[in-house]
Amino acid sequence: MPGACIGGMIGTSCSGTNAARYGTMRENVLGLTVVLADGTIVKTKQRPRKSAAGYNLTGLFIGSEGTLGIVTEATLRLNVKPKFENVAVVSFNTLGDAASTVAEIVQQGIAANALELLDDNMMKYVNESGEVTTKYEETPTLMLKLGGNSKEAAKLTTNTVKEICKRHKSNSFRFAETEEQKFELWNARKSALWSTIAHGKRTVDPDVQVWTTDVAVPMSQLAKSIEQTKAEIQAAGFEHSFVGHVGDGNYHALILFKNVPEQYNAAKKLVQSMVDRAIADEGTVTGEHGVGYGKRDYLVEESGEDAISLMRKLKLALDPNRILNPDKVFRIDPNEPEQEGH
Amino acid sequence: MPGACIGGMIGTSCSGTNAARYGTMRENVLGLTVVLADGTIVKTKQRPRKSAAGYNLTGLFIGSEGTLGIVTEATLRLNVKPKFENVAVVSFNTLGDAASTVAEIVQQGIAANALELLDDNMMKYVNESGEVTTKYEETPTLMLKLGGNSKEAAKLTTNTVKEICKRHKSNSFRFAETEEQKFELWNARKSALWSTIAHGKRTVDPDVQVWTTDVAVPMSQLAKSIEQTKAEIQAAGFEHSFVGHVGDGNYHALILFKNVPEQYNAAKKLVQSMVDRAIADEGTVTGEHGVGYGKRDYLVEESGEDAISLMRKLKLALDPNRILNPDKVFRIDPNEPEQEGH
Ligand SMILES: Cc1cc2nc3c(=O)[nH]c(=O)nc-3n(C[C@H](O)[C@H](O)[C@H](O)COP(=O)(O)OP(=O)(O)OC[C@H]3O[C@@H](n4cnc5c(N)ncnc54)[C@H](O)[C@@H]3O)c2cc1C
Ligand SMILES: Cc1cc2nc3c(=O)[nH]c(=O)nc-3n(C[C@H](O)[C@H](O)[C@H](O)COP(=O)(O)OP(=O)(O)OC[C@H]3O[C@@H](n4cnc5c(N)ncnc54)[C@H](O)[C@@H]3O)c2cc1C
Repeated sequence: MPGACIGGMIGTSCSGTNAARYGTMRENVLGLTVVLADGTIVKTKQRPRKSAAGYNLTGLFIGSEGTLGIVTEATLRLNVKPKFENVAVVSFNTLGDAASTVAEIVQQGIAANALELLDDNMMKYVNESGEVTTKYEETPTLMLKLGGNSKEAAKLTTNTVKEICKRHKSNSFRFAETEEQKFELWNARKSALWSTIAHGKRTVDPDVQVWTTDVAVPMSQLAKSIEQTKAEIQAAGFEHSFVGHVGDGNYHALILFKNVPEQYNAAKKLVQSMVDRAIADEGTVTGEHGVGYGKRDYLVEESGEDAISLMRKLKLALDPNRILNPDKVFRIDPNEPEQEGH
Repeated sequence: MPGACIGGMIGTSCSGTNAARYGTMRENVLGLTVVLADGTIVKTKQRPRKSAAGYNLTGLFIGSEGTLGIVTEATLRLNVKPKFENVAVVSFNTLGDAASTVAEIVQQGIAANALELLDDNMMKYVNESGEVTTKYEETPTLMLKLGGNSKEAAKLTTNTVKEICKRHKSNSFRFAETEEQKFELWNARKSALWSTIAHGKRTVDPDVQVWTTDVAVPMSQLAKSIEQTKAEIQAAGFEHSFVGHVGDGNYHALILFKNVPEQYNAAKKLVQSMVDRAIADEGTVTGEHGVGYGKRDYLVEESGEDAISLMRKLKLALDPNRILNPDKVFRIDPNEPEQEGH
């Protein structure tokens, strides 16, 4: 998200539109300096690109949401940006068509630099946002970054992807031609949250709330998962939008609701259902946002009590006095009752 | 290595010639079922491609060499093989030229499917092995796999790499033309160990021993690291060879020695020096073979006492009775004296 710091990004093992190609924080941190609860300073690794030496301490701290130690230094892997990159916008009639396109791109081993899905509402909010100078079709849409080391290489990949899109019944395949258009387009994608809120302020309530949450599922479950979640939210009568880093099977729902308890509770139920579905589909309760306090119970559902008690053992071994973000990710005392709020 | 099992591969976080492109076990295991020391069975993760939910238990078990639990199931990520692949053999006058070629390939972001370095001796032993029908130049050599989704894409990459090789003073750039040649060539690379031993049996002693060890260093240190290590081994009068998964900054030395204590001790000293150099170069004492009992002291040098005591805490939290591979990776009691043998 805009404004995230390295420490927080490591804390949540975050990622975004480029993760399909370059990986998440897990794949891009080579080593950390961490201050432990007892004041010890540990450097988890020097800076080889790979290592089989000792426990993977780096990996243990990434995504532990500040519960095991404070990161004070990080060695990051640098990735090389492709010299040439095309940005394309492809519209489809159905989410299913868009999702099956993505599955085929991934199955063919085509390394797209980004594979983003936006639903019909999201495209509408993007059009409304005033951030784009062209109007896009308001149907399920893929935004793609397709690159290469030479113009020819980028073109080859782009042509292959274009054919795949056609096979999956794309309506249109448009390029951002200029650097400005590329920037504008990706910027529109980035402002998904703000465009959705702006829409909500106009049409739902000036004090509109947005519940934004994410899950990730195996690729084979992606289309079904999004379609069912969307249908449920629609049936409940909430304005909403979807965006997904679909190259990773990861998607976000943004639910707009009025600042009243009934709507809050109804939105909460919808999120619960989305998460339950992700777990049933062998996915995860969060692909990138992290667990925090809000998804602690979901984590138990996903991982089971035994995995949580293993995490608890690790936590208590490193922080016996429970001074670092106590009760984040999981309750240290499993019998403590849940507090309200998210 | 030939004959490695999934459990052992996970135990050592192993990798090989394809890791430069597809990653090591760390990047290719989505989830594990593990039996803990107390008999609890934990499933670390379902099968989403990415997740920010809870501690990275999967990553903790990978590379822990059986000290934290017994893996009974693993969910692996499948990678897509490129449809077209060229195998090339490029010879150089110096290790430095070969290594700087690799550095430039990596810096340009070219995704070679494999980037293997063989030193002059290794090429000689390959020629001697009877595994190849053509004779190769007995100078430092890169073996490359360069692929793509189409013939044109593979060709584009190959041409770019060819130019880079030329700029770094390659002597020749030869393709394996047929599938048989590709197989033969990669097979020759795979039999590096056996070719070296066969050479040793003929020229050193019928009961020759081979000390095979690996380190990994940052790319910028690679040429210097190999050259200095090789010079030392040469100066000490040992027959030897080098192979490296150099796309990852990882290389192996194979030192041939007679089965007598003086030679064993001299070889041991050379390995110590190679490892010390890797640590000084901000590298790691093993890129893929693991620590076991042999490299425990080196691990302390690399990671420092504080990191080892953190590993110790994790070990004792999960296995307080020390029943799982006790004293592997590190001594549980730091005051225990080192035993002889490797
Ligand atoms: C509008 C919006 C958009 C978002 N988009 C994305 C997205 O695209 N992808 C994504 O992955 N996430 C996203 N998130 C979730 C989250 O903001 C990110 O994961 C982000 O990386 C958090 O960074 P931060 O600096 O804000 O961290 P904080 O929120 O300050 O901290 C995050 C966690 O890390 C811990 N932490 C912070 N610093 C340290 C440190 N030095 N050492 C140890 N632990 C530390 C904190 O205690 C906390 O548990 C989004 C959130 C919002 C509100
Ligand atoms: C000739 C030769 C070539 C090699 N080449 C390579 C190479 O190219 N790349 C590389 O990375 N390594 C290499 N190695 C090192 C090593 O053999 C590999 O890392 C290999 O993966 C080990 O697999 P294995 O099945 O033989 O495991 P083992 O040697 O049986 O076990 C390895 C470790 O994992 C633990 N373990 C085994 N099964 C389990 C389980 N189910 N659960 C938990 N822990 C378990 C063991 O206790 C042990 O600590 C090589 C070794 C040799 C001798």
